[in-house]
Amino acid sequence: MLEDKNQPKTQLENLGEFGLIEHLTKNIEITQESTIKSIGDDAAVLDFGTKKAVVSTDLLVEGVHFDLAYMPLKHLGYKAVVANVSDICAMNATPTQITISIAVSNRFPLEAIEELYEGMKLAAKIYNVDIIGGDTTSSQKGLIISITAIGEANLDDIVYRNGAQQNDLLVVTGDVGAAYMGLQVLEREKQVFQVNPNNQPDLEPYSYLIERQLKPEARKDIKELLEKLEVKPTSMIDISDGLSSEIIHLCKQSNVGCNLFEEKIPADPQLINVCEEFNIDITTVALNGGEDYELLFTIKMEDFDKIKANPNFTVIGHMTEAKEGMHLITRANTKIALKARGWNALSE
Amino acid sequence: MLEDKNQPKTQLENLGEFGLIEHLTKNIEITQESTIKSIGDDAAVLDFGTKKAVVSTDLLVEGVHFDLAYMPLKHLGYKAVVANVSDICAMNATPTQITISIAVSNRFPLEAIEELYEGMKLAAKIYNVDIIGGDTTSSQKGLIISITAIGEANLDDIVYRNGAQQNDLLVVTGDVGAAYMGLQVLEREKQVFQVNPNNQPDLEPYSYLIERQLKPEARKDIKELLEKLEVKPTSMIDISDGLSSEIIHLCKQSNVGCNLFEEKIPADPQLINVCEEFNIDITTVALNGGEDYELLFTIKMEDFDKIKANPNFTVIGHMTEAKEGMHLITRANTKIALKARGWNALSE
Repeated sequence: MLEDKNQPKTQLENLGEFGLIEHLTKNIEITQESTIKSIGDDAAVLDFGTKKAVVSTDLLVEGVHFDLAYMPLKHLGYKAVVANVSDICAMNATPTQITISIAVSNRFPLEAIEELYEGMKLAAKIYNVDIIGGDTTSSQKGLIISITAIGEANLDDIVYRNGAQQNDLLVVTGDVGAAYMGLQVLEREKQVFQVNPNNQPDLEPYSYLIERQLKPEARKDIKELLEKLEVKPTSMIDISDGLSSEIIHLCKQSNVGCNLFEEKIPADPQLINVCEEFNIDITTVALNGGEDYELLFTIKMEDFDKIKANPNFTVIGHMTEAKEGMHLITRANTKIALKARGWNALSE
Repeated sequence: MLEDKNQPKTQLENLGEFGLIEHLTKNIEITQESTIKSIGDDAAVLDFGTKKAVVSTDLLVEGVHFDLAYMPLKHLGYKAVVANVSDICAMNATPTQITISIAVSNRFPLEAIEELYEGMKLAAKIYNVDIIGGDTTSSQKGLIISITAIGEANLDDIVYRNGAQQNDLLVVTGDVGAAYMGLQVLEREKQVFQVNPNNQPDLEPYSYLIERQLKPEARKDIKELLEKLEVKPTSMIDISDGLSSEIIHLCKQSNVGCNLFEEKIPADPQLINVCEEFNIDITTVALNGGEDYELLFTIKMEDFDKIKANPNFTVIGHMTEAKEGMHLITRANTKIALKARGWNALSE
């Protein structure tokens, strides 16, 4: 799916490390007022005035976090930036800058790395963050991407994972589980392709799921939306590992329990259809499938009226005393303990 | 040299990703006033008040940047932090926080990663920086380390690479080339060890060189020292790739040329001896050997009197018009163009 064998290929050795950095960073524009000095020195310089700086970082490894057989490099670059921007959004902060480090083996020609950077630059543009630095080096095997995102916020606006209180409502943005099933569809197509490379897959019935997997978006809009509705979450996290795992993070750090209602978990109609086709339980997918990059947060019960009419938000449960534990209340009204299966990179 | 086969080994799979992060970060103390929120949320939160934030990042790959056959993990961790702290020092800023991301293959037991972290924590303590976040994941092959360092400075104090002027003096701290020859000594010992594992090497005559390679230090002291001497450099960079390469960076970004005097380049007596033993030209080593983490900077000529008596500084050349180019003036008084051989990761 990825490779056009006729495209021009420039070997990275011919450029050298400095040449590659220069080549990749020459068109990077700076738009943030807080960026005083960007790429080209030992470090970037940022000015946050009276605002606070928020910093997050991620490391992505080929074969562990992504498979280039179905993940086009431009999409990978876009997604890598989105995942980091999402962490800043989950602090109720505004993303402002990113640094990008990549290590590449010699199997990648310059054009491949350019494509990766195209996706990164596109995401930086769309989310209005400056690319202010990074590192470019070689790897012995595969592609490695490390991104650090920086954001700004007023101290009073920042929302941590540890502020949830008993009786708070648990709210999720958008829908969950689609990115995981998008991956399942792509994995199946990869296997079909390996058996018959001439097979032309019809991916139309899976378009939403595949887009959620290949080109997810961070919910940068939520901060503004909540401000408009005059709601400040008591705790917040983004859904990168899976709903279940993120709920457990909020509960543990806030020292509360939680009842999550199966019937309330928002799912896209396409996800419902595809879970039937794959004969997979949709709730398992919603609980354990990661990479949706939606936001999960808690609000005070009295704020319910302010958000209930907004289609971006779904109340999926409420917080309890810590000793009551963390449970899924099924449609059949049975109580099942939540497990942090999540996306466990080290056991895979 | 590294492994004690009898030491306890805990498989990383048993801990899981979250367990490993929790285990590695549980004793990390926070001492910086500017650290509002550290590890444990989607992002860390920093407060720089009226100071500016300075950000730098590095990606280190096993087999490319380090060889665990002679680099103990604790030293590697220490050095990885030092390399990043050094970049902040090279901005004439004070390092305050770091994030640490690592990817490890299953061949590393928990104890190995703990050792790596021990070195990182030690460096964080010595350089007084807070470890505020990071990412821990698996790799398909080897160890990958990504560190982002953050520092603070008054805007007026920050020194860029692009401020050097014609007639400015070129100054280097400490001595150069030793880290590279330390690596050569270790490479030789590795080969001896492979032929005869029972051979006990006598590394005493190389102790300084090996220490410069295995446990380099960042020149965090220089900012304060220059302040005391009332000297503000016009441009500055740290020596990570090699003197020649760093001089070229300063010249290109400042749009000046340079005359570097071979006889002025500071070398440790041990380096002189070992270069003779290895039959390697010491100037080649000083120019192209990297990882010394000394600072290279330019000052106005009228500041010469302020620094000339200080043993930390050596004037090694002066800046010229750009059109005169960048040259080494040899002991025999011949002019040789400087080349950015440096440490070219992509051609190796």
